[in-house]
Amino acid sequence: MKKRKILERQGVPKMKSIALIGVGMIGGSLVSALKKAGAAKHIIGIDIDSKELDKAIKAGVIDEKLEIKDLMGLDDLDLIIIATPVGAMYGVFVELSKYNLTDDVLITDVGSTKVSVIESAKKAIGYLPKNFVPSHPIAGKEFSGIEFSDLEMFKGSKSIVTPHECSDEKAIMSVVSIWQSAGAIVDVIGAKEHDRILAATSHLPHVLAYTLVNSLVTTDYKESVFDYAAGGFKSLTRTASSSPVMWRDICLNNKDDILFWLDIYQDNLSAIRNMIEDSEGDKLENVFSEAKRTRDNHFS
Amino acid sequence: MKKRKILERQGVPKMKSIALIGVGMIGGSLVSALKKAGAAKHIIGIDIDSKELDKAIKAGVIDEKLEIKDLMGLDDLDLIIIATPVGAMYGVFVELSKYNLTDDVLITDVGSTKVSVIESAKKAIGYLPKNFVPSHPIAGKEFSGIEFSDLEMFKGSKSIVTPHECSDEKAIMSVVSIWQSAGAIVDVIGAKEHDRILAATSHLPHVLAYTLVNSLVTTDYKESVFDYAAGGFKSLTRTASSSPVMWRDICLNNKDDILFWLDIYQDNLSAIRNMIEDSEGDKLENVFSEAKRTRDNHFS
Repeated sequence: MKKRKILERQGVPKMKSIALIGVGMIGGSLVSALKKAGAAKHIIGIDIDSKELDKAIKAGVIDEKLEIKDLMGLDDLDLIIIATPVGAMYGVFVELSKYNLTDDVLITDVGSTKVSVIESAKKAIGYLPKNFVPSHPIAGKEFSGIEFSDLEMFKGSKSIVTPHECSDEKAIMSVVSIWQSAGAIVDVIGAKEHDRILAATSHLPHVLAYTLVNSLVTTDYKESVFDYAAGGFKSLTRTASSSPVMWRDICLNNKDDILFWLDIYQDNLSAIRNMIEDSEGDKLENVFSEAKRTRDNHFS
Repeated sequence: MKKRKILERQGVPKMKSIALIGVGMIGGSLVSALKKAGAAKHIIGIDIDSKELDKAIKAGVIDEKLEIKDLMGLDDLDLIIIATPVGAMYGVFVELSKYNLTDDVLITDVGSTKVSVIESAKKAIGYLPKNFVPSHPIAGKEFSGIEFSDLEMFKGSKSIVTPHECSDEKAIMSVVSIWQSAGAIVDVIGAKEHDRILAATSHLPHVLAYTLVNSLVTTDYKESVFDYAAGGFKSLTRTASSSPVMWRDICLNNKDDILFWLDIYQDNLSAIRNMIEDSEGDKLENVFSEAKRTRDNHFS
């Protein structure tokens, strides 16, 4: 793969209003960090769940709640952040396309799959706006909801910006500056490459953790099994507490890449299964050693 | 399965010398906790790695190093703890059987597989000593070596005591009191049940984590994949940094139980693979929701 260039640190943008569509943990964390950094003055929340909006107002994460059509004609609107599950983004783009937003309004999203989001935008709007620059923070927790938003969430973690073929350079650098203002280290890569890599490091692991938990409740051993689950099990299955709707959407929207890694994983697991069945100690020690070496190199 | 009775808290035993065979993280943590609790005065370390013994003396974890044959004739020896990888235990029992230890010396081990340890003892000694009571702490870290021993390691965690058919009641309660003195909550269950349950909560998850790490280095994406690994991936693969020799031995010594759970896991994973391939959103959401509900119930 191509070596990515190191991005210079951009200045903190000075935005007036930001509209957050999909008011939850990730979006709430981002707008809180931007406000703290002095990058934004006023946060508008838009969500199909009005209780979540009221909680967000009470928590001081958003300043007011509006409907998507109310964004039309707001002359101090600088940025729209779409932070719904990726399956809901097509509908958001359809709504946005009705109201003729000007090129002055920057649009980004925080979805975990990027090719599908770009395709949704193109299909819903009819073309790819030059001021739309998709992005994805490599951070988060296994919880959902505005009460878990945290303005420190992106500090020191990576955020990926994935421009499409029509994103203009100024808009790209503005989205870079937004993530940098939230404390993230930003890389700009292609949407396809993003999806392939994240399928390995995030999407596949979530599927495996969900599968492991379910595998342990399909027999008579249900109660006692969890009685004897130690730290290793708890940390390994942490991601199985993540939002089922969000992960359903990710599986549906990054199918080919997830299946690419899942096939490799299943082949490797079958090979290890055979080593166990045939009591091949040397082979087992080799594959375990290789994994340990790899992991220790990357997380020392 | 049978409901286990709640064990009453035993008093702290008053032991003079303890011999620790296999001086590493788990054994070192146990003898340190016992000394702190006032349960033991003098710790003898025995290991094939004399550097590890010197480190243990320097760290104050053991008081002296001896060879296994030197245990014969020590009249203040109260307890032998075998804390080698399970594959090395047969050889330890062979050595011990040469020296006619009296029934006054209690013997336990801390191995992760229990049926195989009992079989090794019977084969090596010719019978099962009534003063031998196997055990296994459900605690630990992904590290190896005496420098990671920690006298708080067992505090509040479970330890399982798995008597064999000849273990006598007094010896069983002594081993219970040893783990309680180290801070653990002790359950007494059968070795077979232990092995089946731990295969699910510990052995299978280790195999899956090793497999996941290896699956990500078999393609061109090696470098960038780990560049974009977030907290979820790190916690999911934590156990892949564990000792390859220890886990090789566990796979070889609890083969049938690991394969029992691995088959269930592979079937479930194939089912989920098909749901992804066929874009079955409702089914995916259901299995993810079930896993989330189960995990949240057990680790809230």
